[in-house]
Amino acid sequence: MANKPPRRAAELDERVYAKALVKLQIELVKLQRELIACGERILVLIEGRDAAGKDGAIKHIIEHLSPRETRVVALGPPSDRERHSWYFQRYVRYLPSAGEMVLFNRSWYNRAGVEPVMGFCTRREAREFLETVPDFERMLVRSGIKLFKYYLDIDRHEQRRRLAARRRDPLKQWKLSPVDAKAQKLWRQYSAARDVMFRRTHTEIAPWTVIRADDKHQARLNLIRDLLSRLDYRDRDKRLIKPERDIVFPFEPRFLADGSIAR
Amino acid sequence: MANKPPRRAAELDERVYAKALVKLQIELVKLQRELIACGERILVLIEGRDAAGKDGAIKHIIEHLSPRETRVVALGPPSDRERHSWYFQRYVRYLPSAGEMVLFNRSWYNRAGVEPVMGFCTRREAREFLETVPDFERMLVRSGIKLFKYYLDIDRHEQRRRLAARRRDPLKQWKLSPVDAKAQKLWRQYSAARDVMFRRTHTEIAPWTVIRADDKHQARLNLIRDLLSRLDYRDRDKRLIKPERDIVFPFEPRFLADGSIAR
Amino acid sequence: MANKPPRRAAELDERVYAKALVKLQIELVKLQRELIACGERILVLIEGRDAAGKDGAIKHIIEHLSPRETRVVALGPPSDRERHSWYFQRYVRYLPSAGEMVLFNRSWYNRAGVEPVMGFCTRREAREFLETVPDFERMLVRSGIKLFKYYLDIDRHEQRRRLAARRRDPLKQWKLSPVDAKAQKLWRQYSAARDVMFRRTHTEIAPWTVIRADDKHQARLNLIRDLLSRLDYRDRDKRLIKPERDIVFPFEPRFLADGSIAR
Amino acid sequence: MANKPPRRAAELDERVYAKALVKLQIELVKLQRELIACGERILVLIEGRDAAGKDGAIKHIIEHLSPRETRVVALGPPSDRERHSWYFQRYVRYLPSAGEMVLFNRSWYNRAGVEPVMGFCTRREAREFLETVPDFERMLVRSGIKLFKYYLDIDRHEQRRRLAARRRDPLKQWKLSPVDAKAQKLWRQYSAARDVMFRRTHTEIAPWTVIRADDKHQARLNLIRDLLSRLDYRDRDKRLIKPERDIVFPFEPRFLADGSIAR
Repeated sequence: MANKPPRRAAELDERVYAKALVKLQIELVKLQRELIACGERILVLIEGRDAAGKDGAIKHIIEHLSPRETRVVALGPPSDRERHSWYFQRYVRYLPSAGEMVLFNRSWYNRAGVEPVMGFCTRREAREFLETVPDFERMLVRSGIKLFKYYLDIDRHEQRRRLAARRRDPLKQWKLSPVDAKAQKLWRQYSAARDVMFRRTHTEIAPWTVIRADDKHQARLNLIRDLLSRLDYRDRDKRLIKPERDIVFPFEPRFLADGSIAR
Repeated sequence: MANKPPRRAAELDERVYAKALVKLQIELVKLQRELIACGERILVLIEGRDAAGKDGAIKHIIEHLSPRETRVVALGPPSDRERHSWYFQRYVRYLPSAGEMVLFNRSWYNRAGVEPVMGFCTRREAREFLETVPDFERMLVRSGIKLFKYYLDIDRHEQRRRLAARRRDPLKQWKLSPVDAKAQKLWRQYSAARDVMFRRTHTEIAPWTVIRADDKHQARLNLIRDLLSRLDYRDRDKRLIKPERDIVFPFEPRFLADGSIAR
Repeated sequence: MANKPPRRAAELDERVYAKALVKLQIELVKLQRELIACGERILVLIEGRDAAGKDGAIKHIIEHLSPRETRVVALGPPSDRERHSWYFQRYVRYLPSAGEMVLFNRSWYNRAGVEPVMGFCTRREAREFLETVPDFERMLVRSGIKLFKYYLDIDRHEQRRRLAARRRDPLKQWKLSPVDAKAQKLWRQYSAARDVMFRRTHTEIAPWTVIRADDKHQARLNLIRDLLSRLDYRDRDKRLIKPERDIVFPFEPRFLADGSIAR
Repeated sequence: MANKPPRRAAELDERVYAKALVKLQIELVKLQRELIACGERILVLIEGRDAAGKDGAIKHIIEHLSPRETRVVALGPPSDRERHSWYFQRYVRYLPSAGEMVLFNRSWYNRAGVEPVMGFCTRREAREFLETVPDFERMLVRSGIKLFKYYLDIDRHEQRRRLAARRRDPLKQWKLSPVDAKAQKLWRQYSAARDVMFRRTHTEIAPWTVIRADDKHQARLNLIRDLLSRLDYRDRDKRLIKPERDIVFPFEPRFLADGSIAR
């Protein structure tokens, strides 16, 4: 069963998608105007498996936002100095100030996923992280930062398809890394790490939202809709942000045999 | 005559453009692989009038490059502290290290354009800047940085069209600023400032390349072609980077009555 | 009674002090060698009333330490951007990395002292701070940072004497500020704020140590002795770090009528 | 002859020195008040052989200055990233802003001294540096920074004495490094490198001042006197800053057989 790809919902028609996206981007622009006026601070963490579509989702969220008040943070491996500093220190530097929206492409949750799975941190460090992160996030939220945590989930077959396509695509060569070469092989370990992460860090004050991302376009629309629905702003076009299928929310995930999350 | 728009070359067919762009982006990916392998440092300044297409050009250059080795720098107005520091200091911070390609969306040349025209700096500061910048750039080039300076030029009618379209576009609201409201009104002053800038800072070691940008698509292709033609890398597809019309190079500009640069 | 200065212990003879200080500084050098070898991270917060001797204490602690691994952090008022960021953000930047000893001359505890007393923060912010700081410090300590919090306490007469001397001293002009002009007038408010701070932030994992500082020399020796006694290092000269009077430890302060802490 | 120490002037009486120092420090305080009021930017480079007294001189200059407007910069070896960036980049970051006085304890001139002598840079890099530095400094000076370059010079016997004393002093262990172990052995090479440095970088706009430093106390007083004499400020006590012997100024050094500079 795990070897047979589950049936996929018919993909969105290209033009329907393009039209829907533009409408949501206009809402994002309205939202940002309000954020800037009110001095709100927005922090969006985008997590998910390799090839789940994090880069693309972020790219389309920020496409028409003001660069000065929008920041995408995708940190490389820590420097030697950073490795010997407080784990959160290099992330803290990029937290949003008034009026800013910051999107983390992967985040401190590396220590709950790629790091323990690939052996880049000790078990003790991973455990310590899971114990600390709810406190850390509570501090941020209490300080007034609005924190959103998204996890893009794909199934194993879709990941295989995408990684293979990536290897063939001359425009995506830079995305290839030793880490994603192991994504398929370590599928179960990643699933297990993710489940532990959800159990330990899905808190009332900083909940996870899981987005099914086997259909990239649908996933982007859903992510933006969900984000818009959780923030207040003027002139909202209410029709656009109705909750949709494919968002696992409220969060009580059932996990399928292939490690992906059931709708 | 200045009131009648010059005839424009037929715009590129959309599909022809898309295909040509992808091919050039593949070349950029090859180039970057080489830059990283050799530890080259690339610095590209993108200057030009308001609405000349700087944002779009940069977006398409970096679209498929590795984010870790590519940086776009678009600095806001200087902080109070920066205003009282060495003028180049806040730019120096972002110079490329080994293997990096840095693109400045506007640059230190603000002090040869928007700042003197809008009265954001003193005449003395602007003069001082023009005297210093050749020395500054020579230092960078001698240190091994490969420096490219592009100026995107549009004519007055095209700018008017674009600024009007921008005001109507709900996705471009953040681009509106008091500065671009004056772009049309201060057209002559901007032209004069640009001409002085060219005369003083077009040096052998750091020459300007002017790109006619009334056709956005053509301009992007030309900019990328020019950049590729000036750097060496393996597996170059030579057919793609032939010199094309609309690049004013070698640089001996003749200026039209409307302040734009003749082809 | 509050108007009469309490009897002071005879001050240390100058030469006795100088000799004792050098011996303790030699111990600090040994300690630092060990810290560097083991990659320990030390964070020392020095708090206390205006004119309590914080600058002098820090100066003598670091006098013979390696500048590369020792950092003194004395932050000015927050910039506008910092004011709208997470309160701890600007401090986090300076946390110690492996092998480093960082001394904060005043610290995040500004928000439990000068800020609420002088009206530089809202009551809500001050309350929020007191609730958050134990979590914040626990995170640091659990991450492996060794955190020491010292409060230098002087009585009201001694402060008056020192502030008056400061005003007359041509070498201390820069120390004069509108804040310390009010130190005497707001003595009670500072005492009350300090007491609340102690009650809320004296935790097992990050306790306060109060040092009587009416005698500057004695206070410096005591602070260094206490710090040395809490850390392990080779070749320790045990005679030097015997606990002494004037350190209120274990911490169960009784407060005198003038707001200072009884020995 | 080179083996026999030159006769030294009688050392300053300790109390005479202490009194003279305090008077000069009061002048420095007056000077700083003026610098802050006028928004001047002061940059002082302190160079000199190992053990020439750079640390001590700086310590006594800043002793009573306002820490917020005074910065001492002593950079460690460059990180890997810095090594592949523009050489001056990591120094530029610390240039003074309005009202600030910045002292560099060693500076970019490492590349004219320790780096070529110890083989930490290539010959090409050292040559490149010497050609670039006058341009670089001219830019800084033209931008309004007041630049002072001091070189503390000691003779070979004095250096030997001091390095030996340092090795015995338990408070100076951190100062020992493999570099200074070679200072005596490479004395001639250091002398030669220094002479080239003087010839190439002693410019009208950014001249060197050489201070004989075999007598530490005298050297500190002379350095401060010289600095004070070159800047304007109110209430200057003119008696204090008379030019003294032991400053080689105007700069036409004659070099002794031992590589030190003749008075």
